Amino acid sequence: MEEKRTEIGDLGEFGLIDRLNKNIKVKHQSTIKGIGDDAAVLDAGSGKVKVVTTDLLMEGVHFDLSYAPLQHLGFKAVAVNVSDVAAMNAIPKQITVSIALSNRFSVEAVEALYKGINAAAEQYHVDVIGGDTTSSRSGLAISITAIGEAKIDQVVYRSGAKVNDIICATGDLGGALIGLQVLEREKQVYLANPDMKPDLEKYAYITGRQLKPDARMDIIHELRDLEVIPTSMIDISDGLASELFHICKASNVGVLIYEDKLPIDKQTFDTAVEFGLDPITCVLNGGEDYELLFTISQEDFSKLEKHPDIHFIGHVTNADEGKYMVTKSETAVELKAQGWKHF
Amino acid sequence: MEEKRTEIGDLGEFGLIDRLNKNIKVKHQSTIKGIGDDAAVLDAGSGKVKVVTTDLLMEGVHFDLSYAPLQHLGFKAVAVNVSDVAAMNAIPKQITVSIALSNRFSVEAVEALYKGINAAAEQYHVDVIGGDTTSSRSGLAISITAIGEAKIDQVVYRSGAKVNDIICATGDLGGALIGLQVLEREKQVYLANPDMKPDLEKYAYITGRQLKPDARMDIIHELRDLEVIPTSMIDISDGLASELFHICKASNVGVLIYEDKLPIDKQTFDTAVEFGLDPITCVLNGGEDYELLFTISQEDFSKLEKHPDIHFIGHVTNADEGKYMVTKSETAVELKAQGWKHF
Repeated sequence: MEEKRTEIGDLGEFGLIDRLNKNIKVKHQSTIKGIGDDAAVLDAGSGKVKVVTTDLLMEGVHFDLSYAPLQHLGFKAVAVNVSDVAAMNAIPKQITVSIALSNRFSVEAVEALYKGINAAAEQYHVDVIGGDTTSSRSGLAISITAIGEAKIDQVVYRSGAKVNDIICATGDLGGALIGLQVLEREKQVYLANPDMKPDLEKYAYITGRQLKPDARMDIIHELRDLEVIPTSMIDISDGLASELFHICKASNVGVLIYEDKLPIDKQTFDTAVEFGLDPITCVLNGGEDYELLFTISQEDFSKLEKHPDIHFIGHVTNADEGKYMVTKSETAVELKAQGWKHF
Repeated sequence: MEEKRTEIGDLGEFGLIDRLNKNIKVKHQSTIKGIGDDAAVLDAGSGKVKVVTTDLLMEGVHFDLSYAPLQHLGFKAVAVNVSDVAAMNAIPKQITVSIALSNRFSVEAVEALYKGINAAAEQYHVDVIGGDTTSSRSGLAISITAIGEAKIDQVVYRSGAKVNDIICATGDLGGALIGLQVLEREKQVYLANPDMKPDLEKYAYITGRQLKPDARMDIIHELRDLEVIPTSMIDISDGLASELFHICKASNVGVLIYEDKLPIDKQTFDTAVEFGLDPITCVLNGGEDYELLFTISQEDFSKLEKHPDIHFIGHVTNADEGKYMVTKSETAVELKAQGWKHF
């Protein structure tokens, strides 16, 4: 039918999104920020905004039901959206949940999925306000939209990083990726020999990072208590390097980070080695950690200095200084945003 | 894995939704209305609200790409959400668009889909503020969330119908269903003999109703100009009878409608007869017309009386009088909500 056929793979996910969005212009005054950050920002009057983010999870692409329990999956589907609201420095309030599923799912299976959704709604204190339940010809699809609130001057964009700001990352990184490697290996073992019961206890932390990630609302509340407003923020869903690139592009800055400052859990490190993977590459390019990456002014450093779960991994530089990591052997290597490509 | 297995088909779509939603409680003051209407209603301060609605469309269930052009599909995906915003008597302002697609789609195909999405965004004057583009293992999935605005006292729920209110339906009904029958028949003809070119010109109106429905924002703006606020409203996506049932349940009323008042286009009528279908059954149970069904106080009747596209099909009765239609032969038959089931 079409005269020209360009494969999506040739453009990549970001290339495709750029191409689709290039003609989009904002018409309404109430649209403060449209496409291009973790969430859109809408004017809600009286100095307040609503932030809106949405995610579509597809079976076989974003999750594999042979090892992802439905209850965890429901929790995760909510958490990843809450994480985007958190990355705007906003508080999530409502979600809509749409699911499409084929008749291979029983009512009990759907209830397990909703049990996880409701557990996450409870934990993150959000109302489930609507959605759609429909059938699918093949796999399970879950689409969640989260709506959050903030004062207009509390909202943090990707674009506010300034030269000399300190770069902070929460938690530890790379675990979700290595957890996925473990789950994939055990799946292959199971497929080869269904009598073999996988022993995942040794990998409980990293498989948990993959299957049931937690959005860092705790950090957002602590930042408020400490009266720190980051200068820029993004959640780490596609890997640290990729997120640093987003901040650099939006803020027109460079970054210098230090290998020995990057947070990695011992189980992540050991298991990466077990798989013959470089742990630092996993930290830089592993997806789905759902930690927060943000920058703060130097003057706010003392307020966060003693925080046990915030790591100061480097600082913001001029755009023309590029994006570099100083290795343990004190060599500066240029960062590459490999990202996390589904196509 | 599960001990008990209940088939989704045993509960049906509405039964499943009821079961999943029964434990959901609203926590936030800003959630004025959660699940149970065409859209959720969120307090936006200063006497204003935001309404939020979402829809997930799955290939093979909600659309068939063998006859639905991608550009029309993109338009329709937006229109069905705008229609839900309209049904709250609100004005749509923003949408998010998430799509999942497999590599059988080219970049040009995705662009055609977005051309339709952008055309609808233009027509309904909404901003595309975000979304997600990801891959799918099989079919195309489209999830759209629409956000609208209204003053808090302008919002119309399903629950406000009062005894003796006049029941109004816009446009004409049943066309989308008959249009689908035509498209399905032509698909079978084409599959049997690919050289056969279907002649759809004769059916242009009804196939257009199916492939590119229009949300009735024109009616919403006219109601504002005429200073009419309906007492209840819903959009007709699952068939007139099913929507009347929703209003009756939410408002705790009954209805009496008149067969000879039901709006049906001549092409719909003739083609229904051609297919051996009862045209009135198509009007009552045909899905996807995306017209508006609403009730008004008797005192507002004179303001709408001469409107060429609003039809007065009956009136609201006491709940214990039930839900009836007076046929052309002056017999009262009880209405059945067959609805539009995808499972």
